Amino acid sequence: MQELFEVDLNGKKRLPLRLVEGFVIAAMTGWSYRLRAGQFLKITDPTGKQAADFWAFNAADLDEHLSAMHTRVWVNKLCPGPGESFHTDHRRPILQLVADTCGVHDLLTASCDEHRYRLYGVQGDHPSCAGNLRAAMKPYLPGKIFIPQPVNFFMNVTVFPDGRVETCANPSKAGDYVVLKAWIDTVVAISACPQEFNPAAGWYPTDLHAAVYDAAPP
Amino acid sequence: MQELFEVDLNGKKRLPLRLVEGFVIAAMTGWSYRLRAGQFLKITDPTGKQAADFWAFNAADLDEHLSAMHTRVWVNKLCPGPGESFHTDHRRPILQLVADTCGVHDLLTASCDEHRYRLYGVQGDHPSCAGNLRAAMKPYLPGKIFIPQPVNFFMNVTVFPDGRVETCANPSKAGDYVVLKAWIDTVVAISACPQEFNPAAGWYPTDLHAAVYDAAPP
Repeated sequence: MQELFEVDLNGKKRLPLRLVEGFVIAAMTGWSYRLRAGQFLKITDPTGKQAADFWAFNAADLDEHLSAMHTRVWVNKLCPGPGESFHTDHRRPILQLVADTCGVHDLLTASCDEHRYRLYGVQGDHPSCAGNLRAAMKPYLPGKIFIPQPVNFFMNVTVFPDGRVETCANPSKAGDYVVLKAWIDTVVAISACPQEFNPAAGWYPTDLHAAVYDAAPP
Repeated sequence: MQELFEVDLNGKKRLPLRLVEGFVIAAMTGWSYRLRAGQFLKITDPTGKQAADFWAFNAADLDEHLSAMHTRVWVNKLCPGPGESFHTDHRRPILQLVADTCGVHDLLTASCDEHRYRLYGVQGDHPSCAGNLRAAMKPYLPGKIFIPQPVNFFMNVTVFPDGRVETCANPSKAGDYVVLKAWIDTVVAISACPQEFNPAAGWYPTDLHAAVYDAAPP
């Protein structure tokens, strides 16, 4: 509980945070957590080139979720940058992107799912981000769930000037991270993307780290 | 039943269609229809600059829906072009874009909803595309529904090279249309966008026309 982490707010000031709890998200698996309003979530790619598929839900009404299509309208960008917030389908901020050492994230692409691996020709089951979300959300949403569009942290989907959209090599280096601040009580879920057939996990899926922090006033 | 309409398939050949039924979708309202596999839907903007928010659902399993995030991955573009298909969250084609006289459509932006108009400061109720979808889908989905990302036909959301995303003036001219072919039995829904506070409906929402056709073999 004494471990401190300082976030550089765009060079303007430093924000000291106190660790609440740290987690390893094993390669190809999912994870969820209930953040309190005002808490911080750090998602780290410890070995580089590993996508973190990410979802967020209003803890008080799990129907309300981080929505890519509403976020784009709000920030007038393909993806929020530091200081900007992800928004919900109720058009209000849910999580602020407080710090970002990678700078490239995807807000265009579906998470991998059982249909994706069936199309690749994989026989039998293969882990998927959609399946990991379903499993991770079971304690909160036991029934059939709708899968919102994820934020794919550390994933590089480039839009070319001619409108072409391509999944390029992930740019994240070992240790790259994002820090998010919860505006409201938020259930977050992460999948360490098990994609082995395109560059979304650098061709070899690896672990992710998640850490929850409180603000640590001096 | 004798009215014919010929679709030019990219200059390659002409496809004769026989009218089944035509509809006026009054300004600011919604409409739905159950297309049989192989039928064609023509959506016309009779006066120009009017967005048509569009959704599609597998008639045999309404949970399966046209999905923007899955379509982008399939066509590797921000939006399908003529000959390409919109895909579902089960990663299979649901509707082919057979003809398109406008050429500019949006697959990035949420439909307008009650939250949008509340943020504008509108007092009381205002029609919205999300509300129109809910009403139009009532015969098929009487309960609370999840609202997928729409295809916004005739709407111009430009992605600039710096990642900026902006709702620009609609480019559709009076009489511009798209023609879609159903790959499977499909429930389609259209909202004549009631947006009065940005260019999505040319600042003055107007009617749309919808027409259903069968192929008319010679």
